[in-house]
Amino acid sequence: MRTVANLIADRRDGIVQPYDDFVQLSSGAAGGTIPDYQLAAWLMAAYLKPLTLQETIDLTRAMAESGDKLDLRALPLPHVDKHSTGGVGDKATLIVLPILAASGVTCVKMSGRGLGITGGTIDKLESVPGFNTSLSPLQMVEQANRIGIALSGQSPALAPADKALYSLRDVTQTVGSVPLIVSSILSKKLAGGSKTIVLDVKCGSGAFMTGLKEARLLSNWLIQVGQALGLDCRVAISDMDQPLGAVGNALEVRQARKILSGEWVDPGTARVRELCLLLAGEALWAAGLCGDASEGYGKAQECLETGLAFKKASAWFAAQGGSLDAELPTAPNMMVLRATCSGWVSRIEAETVGRVVVNLGGGRMVKSDVIDPSVGVEVHRPVGEKVSVGDALFTIHSRDLAGLEEARKTLLSSIVVQEQPCGSPPLILDHDVSTF
Amino acid sequence: MRTVANLIADRRDGIVQPYDDFVQLSSGAAGGTIPDYQLAAWLMAAYLKPLTLQETIDLTRAMAESGDKLDLRALPLPHVDKHSTGGVGDKATLIVLPILAASGVTCVKMSGRGLGITGGTIDKLESVPGFNTSLSPLQMVEQANRIGIALSGQSPALAPADKALYSLRDVTQTVGSVPLIVSSILSKKLAGGSKTIVLDVKCGSGAFMTGLKEARLLSNWLIQVGQALGLDCRVAISDMDQPLGAVGNALEVRQARKILSGEWVDPGTARVRELCLLLAGEALWAAGLCGDASEGYGKAQECLETGLAFKKASAWFAAQGGSLDAELPTAPNMMVLRATCSGWVSRIEAETVGRVVVNLGGGRMVKSDVIDPSVGVEVHRPVGEKVSVGDALFTIHSRDLAGLEEARKTLLSSIVVQEQPCGSPPLILDHDVSTF
Repeated sequence: MRTVANLIADRRDGIVQPYDDFVQLSSGAAGGTIPDYQLAAWLMAAYLKPLTLQETIDLTRAMAESGDKLDLRALPLPHVDKHSTGGVGDKATLIVLPILAASGVTCVKMSGRGLGITGGTIDKLESVPGFNTSLSPLQMVEQANRIGIALSGQSPALAPADKALYSLRDVTQTVGSVPLIVSSILSKKLAGGSKTIVLDVKCGSGAFMTGLKEARLLSNWLIQVGQALGLDCRVAISDMDQPLGAVGNALEVRQARKILSGEWVDPGTARVRELCLLLAGEALWAAGLCGDASEGYGKAQECLETGLAFKKASAWFAAQGGSLDAELPTAPNMMVLRATCSGWVSRIEAETVGRVVVNLGGGRMVKSDVIDPSVGVEVHRPVGEKVSVGDALFTIHSRDLAGLEEARKTLLSSIVVQEQPCGSPPLILDHDVSTF
Repeated sequence: MRTVANLIADRRDGIVQPYDDFVQLSSGAAGGTIPDYQLAAWLMAAYLKPLTLQETIDLTRAMAESGDKLDLRALPLPHVDKHSTGGVGDKATLIVLPILAASGVTCVKMSGRGLGITGGTIDKLESVPGFNTSLSPLQMVEQANRIGIALSGQSPALAPADKALYSLRDVTQTVGSVPLIVSSILSKKLAGGSKTIVLDVKCGSGAFMTGLKEARLLSNWLIQVGQALGLDCRVAISDMDQPLGAVGNALEVRQARKILSGEWVDPGTARVRELCLLLAGEALWAAGLCGDASEGYGKAQECLETGLAFKKASAWFAAQGGSLDAELPTAPNMMVLRATCSGWVSRIEAETVGRVVVNLGGGRMVKSDVIDPSVGVEVHRPVGEKVSVGDALFTIHSRDLAGLEEARKTLLSSIVVQEQPCGSPPLILDHDVSTF
């Protein structure tokens, strides 16, 4: 075995590293036998001397092998996992998973918490009283076997190397490296057991990948690395220049419930619903339950409209100790921001809206921050919508009046209403599928 | 104040950092308020996106300001400090300092310990029974005032940022960066109070800078950064392709004593003596006690030959609790390696000899290793010497017979004796002086 110093020096000098190096790094990170400062130095070297495709495949495999793996063989086929690279207001998992499970797909999924402007599914679900987001691998498999769906926070036993490396990347400015992002995502997926994965790569001001070029690069690497590791990855690059509907944990669960129950009215919610149908369509196609994504879209729509998805979501929430009908926390102060001129919404900055919600207390700046699930911002009119004077643009939910006022000012600067009509930007900007 | 994340991201992206950033880093490193993993990430970024000259000046100043400074104003002028970048068998400080002090120069110096094949003056002096290498700043000034000379291990109160960063660089493969080397050396010198410094930049297989080009670059930066900070730096680039005489702590003190007392006989010791005279000549010139370095060389030679330097060294050793006449530890096993053919020594690999001594137990692989002061290798014939069959080439000093045998094999592979005469390589390869 080489010394850790050798591993760092080779990375620093841009020398291609063999699989064994990544095994050594991953097990050292997972077992705590390599000190953080050496891992941090390696990570910065890896940021500045990026891993090759083969190295990324090797690192991903090594991280997946650093702990246990979920064994899904006892579960009914097909299995599909879904992953989003993270954005502002992205609650698609809460709708897509019940649609899939109601359509006969087994969904066993691990999710994360939010950080900065990026939300996390676990935080959203924890706004539901009693919802248990910490299932053991055994509990997940048992529940998925029973109702076709199980979701939990990342198990410390699965891909522990990723957990250690990710928490270091977060504080050493080494998050934004495509090989490191890919290995982080896919090592968890590999350990999670599903062979088919629908990846929603977010692109825009509220996402990590702000431009389409970077998003395409990430997608392409996800496909290639996934394929080398036996994963059938389907990537949809979706728009994150504007927020995806409501932002704030309880508000997002409420919006998901409205979509599932069919009680939605505003154009903001319609846009979220549309993305969920597109992603579910991709997943049903990937699962082999239909001939193409548009047929899948139709099946997903039917599943929503017949209430089957709602029923499945109810069973899911109940199985994990919550209730889809539960009363969710509400913030004591509310304010509706209305249009002061007529025209068309031509821009809503996702990044700014995300920051407003963090400042209201609905997100974390550092991991140890405690979040308030009740606060947030509803976004009623997406880009492309016609508005008249007095139409509701945003609803702010805040703990205090000062927060309302601060949010109001910032939100007004985040939206542009113009006199000329402008089209709705597409929800899905691009696709990429592996050649399985 | 910016966040540590900002400082890391800017370094990573090659953005020039202002003085305040370096102050923040240095005080965070010194006070332990910035975690090691963030410092490590910054260091690797600084290795791969090297600091500019101005940034190096700023970092050096900030590290010097991170703790106390020695106040030498009460001491008789001139003051000169001497520093070597480290090599195999380099005991020059033990001879040069007494020469200078005996010539009327006040020498207050902090030295380090050895690591890997590079020896450290503190380790050498600790082979002398009773020698106290840990003087407080007050004790140093008092002793220098009384006898003109004081030497101690690095005080934790002076340039503490360097101590923290250096120990991290050592384990994160970020030692070999010219800006980081320069700031480490000069921050300690700046905190040490002397304004005039003779720097011995070692160059060759036994040194950090293996090529003349890199050694010249380092020298040039030392001069420029020193000048910007008010230091008069004189650099001599000296040969470290072959070891500088005996290697091993007690053996080196013995060789120094022979040079000081005039009892030397072998060509290996003559070569060490010659380098000491050259460096002392530089220093006497820098101190303004003579018109040029060659006049300084003559003064230094006189100081040695009249026994004044020996007397000063005796007073120095006594002042710090030791004795120049003390019995030094000896290893139980000894073996003389002799020439098996006649010819001229054309090569002795410093790096290999250094490694042999580390393996004998005379050096450290990691900081926590305990060293044996008694072991080592005497190098009797430097490159260029004519040897006849039976002439002593090396004397090995070992704790056990297995060590002797292993050292013997490796040493035989480290030396080349050729049939044709070859010249002695110059001791000083190049000079550089500031334009003060």
